[in-house]
Amino acid sequence: MVISPDLENLPYIMIKGVKYFELVAEPVERELLPGLWIRGWGYNGSIPGPTIQVYPGDYVNIRVYNALPEGTSVHWHGLDIPNNMDGVPEIQPTPLIRPKCYFDYHFKITNPPGTHMYHTHHNVAKQEMLGLAGGFIILDPSSPAVDRDYFIMLQEFAVKDLPMGILKPGSYEVGPLNDDLQFFTMNGRCFPATSPLPVMFGERIRIRLANPAMKEHPIHLHGHQFIVTAADGNGIFECARMKKNTIAVSSGETWDIEFEADNPGNWSFHCHIPHHSANNMTKEMGGMLTVVQYCQSRPK
Amino acid sequence: MVISPDLENLPYIMIKGVKYFELVAEPVERELLPGLWIRGWGYNGSIPGPTIQVYPGDYVNIRVYNALPEGTSVHWHGLDIPNNMDGVPEIQPTPLIRPKCYFDYHFKITNPPGTHMYHTHHNVAKQEMLGLAGGFIILDPSSPAVDRDYFIMLQEFAVKDLPMGILKPGSYEVGPLNDDLQFFTMNGRCFPATSPLPVMFGERIRIRLANPAMKEHPIHLHGHQFIVTAADGNGIFECARMKKNTIAVSSGETWDIEFEADNPGNWSFHCHIPHHSANNMTKEMGGMLTVVQYCQSRPK
Amino acid sequence: MVISPDLENLPYIMIKGVKYFELVAEPVERELLPGLWIRGWGYNGSIPGPTIQVYPGDYVNIRVYNALPEGTSVHWHGLDIPNNMDGVPEIQPTPLIRPKCYFDYHFKITNPPGTHMYHTHHNVAKQEMLGLAGGFIILDPSSPAVDRDYFIMLQEFAVKDLPMGILKPGSYEVGPLNDDLQFFTMNGRCFPATSPLPVMFGERIRIRLANPAMKEHPIHLHGHQFIVTAADGNGIFECARMKKNTIAVSSGETWDIEFEADNPGNWSFHCHIPHHSANNMTKEMGGMLTVVQYCQSRPK
Repeated sequence: MVISPDLENLPYIMIKGVKYFELVAEPVERELLPGLWIRGWGYNGSIPGPTIQVYPGDYVNIRVYNALPEGTSVHWHGLDIPNNMDGVPEIQPTPLIRPKCYFDYHFKITNPPGTHMYHTHHNVAKQEMLGLAGGFIILDPSSPAVDRDYFIMLQEFAVKDLPMGILKPGSYEVGPLNDDLQFFTMNGRCFPATSPLPVMFGERIRIRLANPAMKEHPIHLHGHQFIVTAADGNGIFECARMKKNTIAVSSGETWDIEFEADNPGNWSFHCHIPHHSANNMTKEMGGMLTVVQYCQSRPK
Repeated sequence: MVISPDLENLPYIMIKGVKYFELVAEPVERELLPGLWIRGWGYNGSIPGPTIQVYPGDYVNIRVYNALPEGTSVHWHGLDIPNNMDGVPEIQPTPLIRPKCYFDYHFKITNPPGTHMYHTHHNVAKQEMLGLAGGFIILDPSSPAVDRDYFIMLQEFAVKDLPMGILKPGSYEVGPLNDDLQFFTMNGRCFPATSPLPVMFGERIRIRLANPAMKEHPIHLHGHQFIVTAADGNGIFECARMKKNTIAVSSGETWDIEFEADNPGNWSFHCHIPHHSANNMTKEMGGMLTVVQYCQSRPK
Repeated sequence: MVISPDLENLPYIMIKGVKYFELVAEPVERELLPGLWIRGWGYNGSIPGPTIQVYPGDYVNIRVYNALPEGTSVHWHGLDIPNNMDGVPEIQPTPLIRPKCYFDYHFKITNPPGTHMYHTHHNVAKQEMLGLAGGFIILDPSSPAVDRDYFIMLQEFAVKDLPMGILKPGSYEVGPLNDDLQFFTMNGRCFPATSPLPVMFGERIRIRLANPAMKEHPIHLHGHQFIVTAADGNGIFECARMKKNTIAVSSGETWDIEFEADNPGNWSFHCHIPHHSANNMTKEMGGMLTVVQYCQSRPK
């Protein structure tokens, strides 16, 4: 299983060979930092939404309820599925889901194992920047190639009524059309509220990064080099894999990286853009940053 | 031949083994959306300029007339040509073309087949952001490897006197030094005014992307994965080609991608940055977005 | 040796097999353009700091004095060193160096030859954007693969009290939290104050690019294609090396490129973003731009 720190996995029930999932697109309050909440839009009470995990060949039915005050749709970003399930109502025979309505997206997983996303594809300038996105992972049914496997979604938020340079507890409405971004999140949390990524010495670690938002985020790992193993859910040929310590993740991209846990300690893993590793331009380390944390005993 | 939707190809006449082209750098009004025009600078009445297509080994003479109110030059971006034809008058023995004057750029095509650009290289912060750029393609004289071959230039524009959030027909002067970009174009059009890219089931499709402007644009294809086959006009070794569904195109870069048309429908092909797939931050889908459109009968 | 135009190399003394270096983090005035100075923070009187050059297997001790008015630390970006030397005091057993204090970072170089950086890792939104960064190069002890080997650090600065569009001699305080960047530098200079990169016909040239700052800078070379040979200090497999003419360097990344000097002249080498090859949005060519300059006789 892939672990998405600070997020739930989306449960399903299996009926006659089909995996049934349910997503509710709805207004969500998310606690980015202790006592500091944003009021945006998400799925099932979460920004980003819960992570969906399936296997190649699965038949899935994902019922999407719209509890938003305007129409929405879901695009299964990176999946090669039929046109009428792709979620772009302006140009495809796929519905705009009106408020209080639902639609059953149903398709077979034909892509190989890999890291993908789901997100709104209606009024995206507003809806995506309010938070309507989540992870969609196609698991590898063969024995795992890694010891730990993490998923992290990168997002950014501008909020109303909180000037730059100030961190004050409260609940702030997201301003989705504002380009002066203030909060930079991993799975909907800012450091130091991001849960660390526990590892044990000698393990092989995979981290899957996904970006549904505005900015390119070059994510830097301290103390290790990693191998870039997959791009947008597609494996990279062994001979073409780059060894790096910083991977630039642009909007719409997913990248999988892998490394050996061979250097004990607490290691920063963060967006290298200086203003993105702070919270609303304040002094303390924050933002899109988490810690790869070596544990003595097996983490749960 | 490569097709540049919504653009002309630049014609030439052949005299004694030399291909003669003519470009006029001039103020241009371009209709981005029905009834919504920008007043910028382009070539031969077009923003971006007409696409130049040549073959390896060609001798070309490109006469550039300057009908602008200030000096200009043309840089043949990506071409390995002599220094005095490279178009950077500040540091090279290549002229600044003054208003009402012209210069004959003449050189042999020594690069292999690939995707390049031409654009101003004088007062670039202003002139490039007014629109002075176009495609320069070196065709492959051997039998075509693909069934359809498209070229798309990515640009952005800020305009004066049209506040964010409003779409009103009219003709607006481009503000080239303004970083609050409002319109995101493919070949000088915003969706829904972009012409679709017709394909037929079973065909192999190439799309060539070129970015002469400010922002990185990660272009996402729905319903398919593509192979990244060339970088800045240079083929990528087969074993190093990545399979992706989103390709980040930075300023100065060109990327060629190829895919099999194996999933019928209408498929969005667009910059994934949420604010870039809208027109001036309005609600409807727009901006740097076009449609890969499966046709039943052979498109012309 | 690697040449860092417009920068010094950091000297060392060898005592009992250990190379001792000294860095002083301090307020620095740097002349970006003739008569135009910025007041930021740097190391040893320089923005960026002097370049550190070592060999694999070296034992180094780098004493960092803090002559700043607030605490700081140094992160050895890209190096696989022990956790207590990594310079992130918020999460590691590594000190915050208080004003008027120092710390001895000491470690063995275990990475292979490659291009890395050092920079502050405290209050980074402010300190990194004031200029606290420098190059860290691990040299190849075997015979050199190239004839000339250059290092260029890319930075950006916003300043106070100088409106966009004006270039006036003076000394300006850097505004590190301002996103409206005005000056784009290579090794702390803007064109035309950047020292050119001399080459001779027939030579093989390497340029190492490093970005510790905010923006992605796609660096374009005129008149040549180059091979991308290393990423973040790690060699790229021969079969995976791309030929390009523009390399996008994101924050936290380093890239090494190599090319044959086979096309004489003066060739622009610059960030392709239009607003970044100008000085504070003025008309003349400027900013993050230098010249690859073919020399008749051997440059010193």
